[in-house]
Amino acid sequence: MSINSFGHLFRVTTWGESHGPALGATVDGCPPNVAVDEAMLQHWLDMRKPGQNKYTTQRQEADQVRILSGVFNGKTTGTPVQLMIENTDQRSKDYGDIAEKFRPGHADITYWQKYGIRDYRGGGRSSARETASRVAAGGLARAALNALAPQVQITGYMVQMGPHKIDREQFDWDEIIRNPFWTPDATAAKTWAGYLDQLRKSGSSVGAMVEVVARGLPAGLGAPVYGKLDTELAAAMMSINAVKGVEIGEGMNAAVLTGEANADEIRMGADGPIFSSNHAGGILGGISTGQDVVVRFSVKPTSSILTPRKTITKSGEEVEIITKGRHDPCVGIRAVPVGEAMMACVLLDHLLLHRGQIGDAGGKIG
Amino acid sequence: MSINSFGHLFRVTTWGESHGPALGATVDGCPPNVAVDEAMLQHWLDMRKPGQNKYTTQRQEADQVRILSGVFNGKTTGTPVQLMIENTDQRSKDYGDIAEKFRPGHADITYWQKYGIRDYRGGGRSSARETASRVAAGGLARAALNALAPQVQITGYMVQMGPHKIDREQFDWDEIIRNPFWTPDATAAKTWAGYLDQLRKSGSSVGAMVEVVARGLPAGLGAPVYGKLDTELAAAMMSINAVKGVEIGEGMNAAVLTGEANADEIRMGADGPIFSSNHAGGILGGISTGQDVVVRFSVKPTSSILTPRKTITKSGEEVEIITKGRHDPCVGIRAVPVGEAMMACVLLDHLLLHRGQIGDAGGKIG
Amino acid sequence: MSINSFGHLFRVTTWGESHGPALGATVDGCPPNVAVDEAMLQHWLDMRKPGQNKYTTQRQEADQVRILSGVFNGKTTGTPVQLMIENTDQRSKDYGDIAEKFRPGHADITYWQKYGIRDYRGGGRSSARETASRVAAGGLARAALNALAPQVQITGYMVQMGPHKIDREQFDWDEIIRNPFWTPDATAAKTWAGYLDQLRKSGSSVGAMVEVVARGLPAGLGAPVYGKLDTELAAAMMSINAVKGVEIGEGMNAAVLTGEANADEIRMGADGPIFSSNHAGGILGGISTGQDVVVRFSVKPTSSILTPRKTITKSGEEVEIITKGRHDPCVGIRAVPVGEAMMACVLLDHLLLHRGQIGDAGGKIG
Amino acid sequence: MSINSFGHLFRVTTWGESHGPALGATVDGCPPNVAVDEAMLQHWLDMRKPGQNKYTTQRQEADQVRILSGVFNGKTTGTPVQLMIENTDQRSKDYGDIAEKFRPGHADITYWQKYGIRDYRGGGRSSARETASRVAAGGLARAALNALAPQVQITGYMVQMGPHKIDREQFDWDEIIRNPFWTPDATAAKTWAGYLDQLRKSGSSVGAMVEVVARGLPAGLGAPVYGKLDTELAAAMMSINAVKGVEIGEGMNAAVLTGEANADEIRMGADGPIFSSNHAGGILGGISTGQDVVVRFSVKPTSSILTPRKTITKSGEEVEIITKGRHDPCVGIRAVPVGEAMMACVLLDHLLLHRGQIGDAGGKIG
Repeated sequence: MSINSFGHLFRVTTWGESHGPALGATVDGCPPNVAVDEAMLQHWLDMRKPGQNKYTTQRQEADQVRILSGVFNGKTTGTPVQLMIENTDQRSKDYGDIAEKFRPGHADITYWQKYGIRDYRGGGRSSARETASRVAAGGLARAALNALAPQVQITGYMVQMGPHKIDREQFDWDEIIRNPFWTPDATAAKTWAGYLDQLRKSGSSVGAMVEVVARGLPAGLGAPVYGKLDTELAAAMMSINAVKGVEIGEGMNAAVLTGEANADEIRMGADGPIFSSNHAGGILGGISTGQDVVVRFSVKPTSSILTPRKTITKSGEEVEIITKGRHDPCVGIRAVPVGEAMMACVLLDHLLLHRGQIGDAGGKIG
Repeated sequence: MSINSFGHLFRVTTWGESHGPALGATVDGCPPNVAVDEAMLQHWLDMRKPGQNKYTTQRQEADQVRILSGVFNGKTTGTPVQLMIENTDQRSKDYGDIAEKFRPGHADITYWQKYGIRDYRGGGRSSARETASRVAAGGLARAALNALAPQVQITGYMVQMGPHKIDREQFDWDEIIRNPFWTPDATAAKTWAGYLDQLRKSGSSVGAMVEVVARGLPAGLGAPVYGKLDTELAAAMMSINAVKGVEIGEGMNAAVLTGEANADEIRMGADGPIFSSNHAGGILGGISTGQDVVVRFSVKPTSSILTPRKTITKSGEEVEIITKGRHDPCVGIRAVPVGEAMMACVLLDHLLLHRGQIGDAGGKIG
Repeated sequence: MSINSFGHLFRVTTWGESHGPALGATVDGCPPNVAVDEAMLQHWLDMRKPGQNKYTTQRQEADQVRILSGVFNGKTTGTPVQLMIENTDQRSKDYGDIAEKFRPGHADITYWQKYGIRDYRGGGRSSARETASRVAAGGLARAALNALAPQVQITGYMVQMGPHKIDREQFDWDEIIRNPFWTPDATAAKTWAGYLDQLRKSGSSVGAMVEVVARGLPAGLGAPVYGKLDTELAAAMMSINAVKGVEIGEGMNAAVLTGEANADEIRMGADGPIFSSNHAGGILGGISTGQDVVVRFSVKPTSSILTPRKTITKSGEEVEIITKGRHDPCVGIRAVPVGEAMMACVLLDHLLLHRGQIGDAGGKIG
Repeated sequence: MSINSFGHLFRVTTWGESHGPALGATVDGCPPNVAVDEAMLQHWLDMRKPGQNKYTTQRQEADQVRILSGVFNGKTTGTPVQLMIENTDQRSKDYGDIAEKFRPGHADITYWQKYGIRDYRGGGRSSARETASRVAAGGLARAALNALAPQVQITGYMVQMGPHKIDREQFDWDEIIRNPFWTPDATAAKTWAGYLDQLRKSGSSVGAMVEVVARGLPAGLGAPVYGKLDTELAAAMMSINAVKGVEIGEGMNAAVLTGEANADEIRMGADGPIFSSNHAGGILGGISTGQDVVVRFSVKPTSSILTPRKTITKSGEEVEIITKGRHDPCVGIRAVPVGEAMMACVLLDHLLLHRGQIGDAGGKIG
């Protein structure tokens, strides 16, 4: 019931604030004998790390992860894995102004109204720094997936920045790691570079859309009602800071389709069922079909902008605020590895849940 | 960890299949001394009941709910409330054909692959009949909300059917209960009537978009990370049959906005903070702001259509299938009361969670 | 988090009151394809059924269990199983007196203080009738255990009634089902019969001690800290009405032993490790050793006795009360099948948990 | 579902091994605005700290706790509190011998059989060092209890060491902190000192019995079935290393009593109901009565003794083992603050649960 946790059998609890001494993830239920070390986790954290190029915040964080428990001689022991990341760049002076004023679009006002106290430094618990913990946990989930289901591949990428969508015709899996936006469309990457440069200089920000795909997932993962794979993925993605919408397969567009247009017809392939299309996004009745699982989510623009905005103080005074500091003009970029991490955690969790309830007694076809 | 449950303190477990003797909801954690009886719950079930007009399935179900426990002399006792709905119209003969064939777009194939056994009658557990249990539980949640926070009003309505959106300028709260589509736009209701009639006659189906709004919710509900109000609502709505996308406030559209366009500025009103706009959909950092909470979800078209579709059998044979039977041409209509029920369950749960952790120690403004 | 639930993957939620229309258990997470029907569950319910001999309450309850969901063609489908038992003998007139008075030793006063409302008929939710639901769920757990680990045998029996203990030298497994006290000591059965007869006639009652043993359980079930097998068994048994103490292996007696006396030395047998003794009760570090798992619990005497006792009313008036009605002089007897049911639920749950996290990757010896 | 967690709303997850870099507790759901700092937690850790006198292990651990998150300016913020204790005295050389051999009475063999890998240094996860994390979390629970229910007092003490029981006539609350055994009987303390000295010199060990009492707890905490206060306390205490039995009130002795002897009669006092006795241990039907809550548990003798014991190796070879190292001759002593910590966690959790479900709507008497 822990409100800062997610997952059932592979259960992640994140902790820590933006400007406290450290943050991290407590991971319970990881299978034993999974090969993992700090370097493997660091690989994923480095993808999300700020300050790598001019398109992300200039905050300098090493984001160095330490494994404090649950791993012995390079392998998981099946006991809780504690992953800790120390905060090193805590320029608290940047945040003095916001102790009393609520930044519009931020959680300042709601944390105050809920708790009657808040760590106002850099957003405290509500800071997107929390997602570093998820990426660390996701790295562990990937290592476990690699041991249990090595054919599963999880890839995230940006499909839209502000008004600029990618051209699906230009989709190139290999392009994704070549540009700073994790986008599969090289032309879009160029357009976005110019667009974002301008936004950054004007102190503005913009939203984005991210897609995460899992290829090679076996059929049968998920469960009815609240264990539905799409339910879990929707929760996982919506729990990421700044996310305002989540779609599976056709997503919101399903509203406009007819039954004929939406049907994924089934034929028999060499290795089992194959589908004529994937409107369903790889999930039927909450359970994976064996097709690609396709999730998309929108990320709102950073609320920290240089244009003065109207707000109030704790004492109810009406004031204006400019959010200085070092912020991402498009936080959607760094949301890509976070979305991948959440996908990895959900899939591993359901792989374990399925093995627990069903073992290898699932139904065969043909 | 129960996969057929949702909620933390107000915890609902649904059970039952489309063509079994009964289905229902086991509700644990309801506050005591809440006035409730079967008639109050029946009111909401009747909204969802099939066979009420030509736009919904002609299956005849009384959907009569019985309270088997947890209520004494018209009040909840604080112990588990068992809500049971007996299945009365179980024309199993309609479903004989699908024992071996998998209907495209249905969960037939995934349930088989997962469990190695399935109750194929009418979709069994994956049938949308399951949502009747949720509506019953939601009725109980509403009764409890009415006792604890009577100012909260939950209203769902359709905002799109296929390509036809409502005109937000025509929005009229009072119109919603006057037309069979639960839409606030009287003109749209007329357009949809003609459109759906045609679809129904051709044996086709279409998707829809539903919006659910909670007005009067106090600020401070929700919590970080996995207790975020938007996380919970996304999961709640995505867990409804046929839902493929969920949005909060601006939703997917947040991707196209700049920080300036997306900011909800804050001023001080007579009774506390007021906002210049509600792009956030009433939630910041996962916690309610006191504005309207606005959730939208898409419902895919029913996969049961009269046009023959290609599929396979359990033994892998390639065949065609026509899904006869009595189906909704637009299941989005009957998803409206279901969405309301899920909203009620989530809000009550978070009201209790907040009271548990915080009591009345939240922060005041002004 | 459901307070009326237990188990992780095999999750049981019981519902219902002593004098409501019905009570039962909602069981989520049962493996699919387990052969089960109502007759198989009835077998266990009949063991617990009241009114079978003069040593148990004369309340006449058929305790007929119905399966409302989750079973199709005689096999579980992997979806929630609803087990319902209708209350048939509800002589509410017996209980009129206790609407205002609190019976000492009963939960009347605490339910009132907690909830501000209570179903006073026969104890309502706090009645030992609730345990019928557990026995039904335990029957399902046994069926699943039988499919997954057929070598596991669960047997409960009484080892003490009031001051009269069994003689362990006379222990005979086959005797257990031959006497009305489920005791393995035929001589004790005779002594107890006379002793209890006298108590019953005088309107008194007495406590008892029950032992439940699981034979044939594989090594490796359980987990650290709160997933410890002994933790779970302690909770399971202590949750049974009237239980006041729980022991594993040496139990409370472990306090008097030295390290030398308590050690279970290990040798290598033909099929794996063998132990020189079983002080540990089959559990080390919370994980099963492969030896017999031995749990013992005490059951307090029924508080419903004919001797007048001092108490108060809701309005604070000091009065006396005699609890008439039809009560068990030694509820410990009927606690035997309940203890077995709880053991079955816990073991199945941990079998699934183990399979989920570990699969077949446990360590081999030799 | 996390197997290394306990609690519902106040939820503690412990992590870490005996000889890893650190161990600790992740605590979610703590109420905000609770005054707490490291010194307050250290107070309780120092009670449990090893090496303080000749009756406990000579391992030298500072057991210095650090608060890494969830506390700001000396108050909790309502977000997760991370408590970390670094391991400083890790003489791994002491443990080289046990990498291959299984120590009888320890979890070496079961961890191996379960996980197929184990951190053999000092017992790894199964080491009693894990209880330091609980004491830290318990300190936080006490701080929160102090804010919410300052009248609650939690006190643990030893009532038996080996064959030597305390004399209840000599019970003196003030004596408890004056002797190294946390016993309320000064005479017993003297007897035990001599007894234990002898045991220690001979390299042997002995069991103990600990009692924990909560005074001043309001009536109404707890809930039916699996939220029963006694169920939760039984689980909490049984989850402590080396505990083999748990009792509430009369405990195992309830088996010998008649209904007349066991009844706690009720009268009306100035401030509410008063009871003639407390056989129930302060709990009826799983809910607190307002009387002292009394829990007792047995602690088995340390299995690490100098007498050679028979055992086997991973490869199945039969060998002998002497467990050298620095061990407690009576671990029951240091279990006292651990038992208190668990009591504090359970009571706070149920205080929050009660507030969440019921608020202040409980029933009044008189």
